[in-house]
Amino acid sequence: MIKVIILGAGNVAIHLAKAFQKTKSVEVIQRYNKSTRNSSEFDPSIPFTKDLQELVKADVYIISITDDAIAGFSKRLKFKHGIVVHTSGSIPLEALQCKAAKGVFYPLQTFSKEKKIDFMEVPVCVESELNKNMIILEDLAKAVSRKVYRINSLQREKLHVAAVFASNFSNHMYKIAGDICESNKISFDILKPLILETAKKIQTIEPVIAQTGPARRDDRQTIQKHLSELEGIQKEIYTLVTQSITETYSDGKKL
Amino acid sequence: MIKVIILGAGNVAIHLAKAFQKTKSVEVIQRYNKSTRNSSEFDPSIPFTKDLQELVKADVYIISITDDAIAGFSKRLKFKHGIVVHTSGSIPLEALQCKAAKGVFYPLQTFSKEKKIDFMEVPVCVESELNKNMIILEDLAKAVSRKVYRINSLQREKLHVAAVFASNFSNHMYKIAGDICESNKISFDILKPLILETAKKIQTIEPVIAQTGPARRDDRQTIQKHLSELEGIQKEIYTLVTQSITETYSDGKKL
Repeated sequence: MIKVIILGAGNVAIHLAKAFQKTKSVEVIQRYNKSTRNSSEFDPSIPFTKDLQELVKADVYIISITDDAIAGFSKRLKFKHGIVVHTSGSIPLEALQCKAAKGVFYPLQTFSKEKKIDFMEVPVCVESELNKNMIILEDLAKAVSRKVYRINSLQREKLHVAAVFASNFSNHMYKIAGDICESNKISFDILKPLILETAKKIQTIEPVIAQTGPARRDDRQTIQKHLSELEGIQKEIYTLVTQSITETYSDGKKL
Repeated sequence: MIKVIILGAGNVAIHLAKAFQKTKSVEVIQRYNKSTRNSSEFDPSIPFTKDLQELVKADVYIISITDDAIAGFSKRLKFKHGIVVHTSGSIPLEALQCKAAKGVFYPLQTFSKEKKIDFMEVPVCVESELNKNMIILEDLAKAVSRKVYRINSLQREKLHVAAVFASNFSNHMYKIAGDICESNKISFDILKPLILETAKKIQTIEPVIAQTGPARRDDRQTIQKHLSELEGIQKEIYTLVTQSITETYSDGKKL
């Protein structure tokens, strides 16, 4: 049985606690937060403290707080036993300034309080300062997820940039599409099945193969027509992304 | 019973024929194509011809060929009965140069030969030159889809631009994410659940609410770090889309 303490009460902490509680090999023996925020989201049977001095002995301490606060918070953890991990995609392992052994336990998914997540399908990226601790972190990850990856800090940094494109930027493309619909009294609902199918497609087909549309076909007439209908930053984005797609399929030479 | 003839043998024609054949209210009485391409994808019980002179009498003639060829092809349809529709998102109704009444029957989805589609969930946008034909086109659409919308040519043009952002451009964001993974020996599989969840999220939450990431948080330190890791057109896209997100959440004022 791996004994875990969760520090923080945000979305990741909430989902992690729920996932651990479903397992037989992990026990959440305590949780800490500086306030009682989101307390109702956690199982009341988990002992709660607002005082770091009251932390009991555990195998893994999971810091799940905002990125900027991780380094400063970790400094306040004076104990030397166990492993202290954070759950951030963009903070290197070395940012942890605790006395205990360090690690990273990064579940790569977009979490919201309202939406249930099948944690078993959430990729968990683990990293360990000490080789001997890797097995514990992997066991911890495998208890809640079928998808466990060893990712070092440099790779995780790159992965985070990739995730910005894959998730944040694609969501912004949906947002612009929604704005165009709204300006023309078209229901955004019409686009929802297309958006879902586009994301489903790349689960089995590489994005470079799945690409369709005027830029892919180098259909300059349609591209020109679209550009004449856009303005401002929407037009700039259309131009730049079209250029990027066109370059992809012309072996890098500019048209 | 609505009698339909399908002209063309591409992905949309294949999926449409299959969807119509599942209904009790629509009969595909003939299909035309200039060659026997993709013939094996169609039910062999549908009479096939390569000769436009052999077209029989139908209620709706569905032209499902490449956009550029629609106008020229429609000119060759000399009969005056029935309704002639095309299935394109980017071609106006007026581009049809047939003698018969005109219309549009545009299923908004990304189709591939290999992948099964639940046509009932595919939005179909219909437009009719004559009001009296609208009911027939709507009945035809409702026979295969739960999601039928009246969309005029101007709206359809805008919808097509919106779809480029929603689907083509988001797919290109996946592609860039995949490139970053590949350059750093990271499996693109790690990002697939995130991509799917991002697309699922906006089925119920508006994209503007669903937005997350460094640009949304105006986290300039992370943005700068990411920019320092990118180059070329990836860096340009990161800069521009970040600017667009930032402007969205700062009431349009530039930072």
